[in-house]
Amino acid sequence: MHLLQHIPTLHDIQETHSAIAPMVHRTPVLTCSGIDAISGAKLFFKCENFQKVGAFKMRGASSASLRLPESARRNGIATHSSGNHAQAVALSAKLLGVPAYVVMPENAPAIKIAGVRSYGAEIIFCAANITSRENTLEEVVARTGAYFIHPYNDYNIIAGQATAAKELMEDVPDLDAIIAPVGGGGLMSGTALATRYLSPGTKVYGAEPKAVDDAWRSMQSGKIEVNATTATLADGLRTNLGEKTFDIIRNHVDDIFTVSEEAIVSAMRLVWERMKIIIEPSCAVPLAAILTTPAPFAGKRVGIILSGGNVDLGELPF
Amino acid sequence: MHLLQHIPTLHDIQETHSAIAPMVHRTPVLTCSGIDAISGAKLFFKCENFQKVGAFKMRGASSASLRLPESARRNGIATHSSGNHAQAVALSAKLLGVPAYVVMPENAPAIKIAGVRSYGAEIIFCAANITSRENTLEEVVARTGAYFIHPYNDYNIIAGQATAAKELMEDVPDLDAIIAPVGGGGLMSGTALATRYLSPGTKVYGAEPKAVDDAWRSMQSGKIEVNATTATLADGLRTNLGEKTFDIIRNHVDDIFTVSEEAIVSAMRLVWERMKIIIEPSCAVPLAAILTTPAPFAGKRVGIILSGGNVDLGELPF
Repeated sequence: MHLLQHIPTLHDIQETHSAIAPMVHRTPVLTCSGIDAISGAKLFFKCENFQKVGAFKMRGASSASLRLPESARRNGIATHSSGNHAQAVALSAKLLGVPAYVVMPENAPAIKIAGVRSYGAEIIFCAANITSRENTLEEVVARTGAYFIHPYNDYNIIAGQATAAKELMEDVPDLDAIIAPVGGGGLMSGTALATRYLSPGTKVYGAEPKAVDDAWRSMQSGKIEVNATTATLADGLRTNLGEKTFDIIRNHVDDIFTVSEEAIVSAMRLVWERMKIIIEPSCAVPLAAILTTPAPFAGKRVGIILSGGNVDLGELPF
Repeated sequence: MHLLQHIPTLHDIQETHSAIAPMVHRTPVLTCSGIDAISGAKLFFKCENFQKVGAFKMRGASSASLRLPESARRNGIATHSSGNHAQAVALSAKLLGVPAYVVMPENAPAIKIAGVRSYGAEIIFCAANITSRENTLEEVVARTGAYFIHPYNDYNIIAGQATAAKELMEDVPDLDAIIAPVGGGGLMSGTALATRYLSPGTKVYGAEPKAVDDAWRSMQSGKIEVNATTATLADGLRTNLGEKTFDIIRNHVDDIFTVSEEAIVSAMRLVWERMKIIIEPSCAVPLAAILTTPAPFAGKRVGIILSGGNVDLGELPF
């Protein structure tokens, strides 16, 4: 294996899948007759909320870490993130026996700081703005020689995220459609590639909050749009697309659906109550899209990537 | 199959298990390395929170309904309950195509009333005391000819509840111990019987809240003790033992552990956060016992029956 400098091929995704197997869980696919009845579709939930660190991010982080040459990996890996990617980088480094450096805003929630620290990463605090974040990361990389693992705009990350959809299609053949949430686009682009390679007849859909509908607008305008606000509960989906992820999404995603905040909360609650599993707000967005716009899914076999389950139980939206 | 008038034998439990298979889920067994590290034991969680109606109660209710002769079943089945047993009776009746009558106190939570109603049962409201409950049930039985299915003190129920432990031992051989919550004792006595038959070397433990420690006191005194209060979050465990369940528990349960309310909330939260699954307070009691009294479990392979996942998300204890 080596660092990918091109859009992952089927072979790259297969190779990645074998390589990361010892570092990730093969997560189960659940079904729920109650939610099928409500949605009018036959839904297959790929439970990345049960993944290590509680989110699909572990697939990408372990892929990128493993594809780094050992000489480059030796000085450690670094990232800036206050979310699931930070924990995924920290755990990947721990499993590979190298240092991890995570730049986090000084106002990051205590529970996320504790999560990253529990995997043994060094945390470097910065001011809560993007300039401070990037400058601090640059300093850390200069000081330590660590390799920066971008959270999404990286073919090695994309190849890792693609393995969730690959497993889903192995477990559930003949899906009419597959749907994933869109934030920076790592999961979405990986899902689209895996589906195009392994099940070309399956429609590929994305879903995002109306409040941060940059991906939907980017599809319309043909260039990367940014969000004027981050005012959504779906904290994992506030990011804009990157060039690499947008290029893949533009070519391989059939449509992107946008949903209200109320629809997100209601879909999240439905999964908690009916399936008895914990999903985070970002993770509820695809189901919210199906319930908001049922027509394209009616009577269809639909795979949903449940992206993660990291929720602050002290701050639930219901 | 016929109605059992004796303590279920291994053959009775096997026969029950085959018979109820189309009416219940074979639930998964999950593990969690994070909670293993905290507890010092190797834990195997039998996920009855994923069972139909969200609790193991569906096993007993389907067993009792199926063992009723068709002539007795034709007029319907009835019970008084505001909890998981009511929904289990309602769904069993629906699946068997017979009427269900559920007596519920007029102050029962709207969500539980809606749950029972969603399975098509007729609800008959009564005043919120035991006399009104029993009188109302008698009237319903006299009026309809329905058969009363007791929630726990019934060998047909016990044979059904025993199938959860049977499945757990089939999936995970060589358990050093198995632990279940104790309320009326249906799950506890079924678990004890299945374990004695299928894995006689495995210790059988119960767990209950200190606030309603009737089972622990009954084991000490040798007779059925009652609770002076129902002041526990674990609403499924407020009941006293029945004669049939106590007889089995006294002979086949090695020990009963009691836990504080704080330990229940903390164990429940741990499962939500680490396993990303929803369990109800009653269901957290066995893990709370292991975390409160770790010595007997240290280094052991321990099966935990996760009894149910029906929680009012609007009233969480954290």
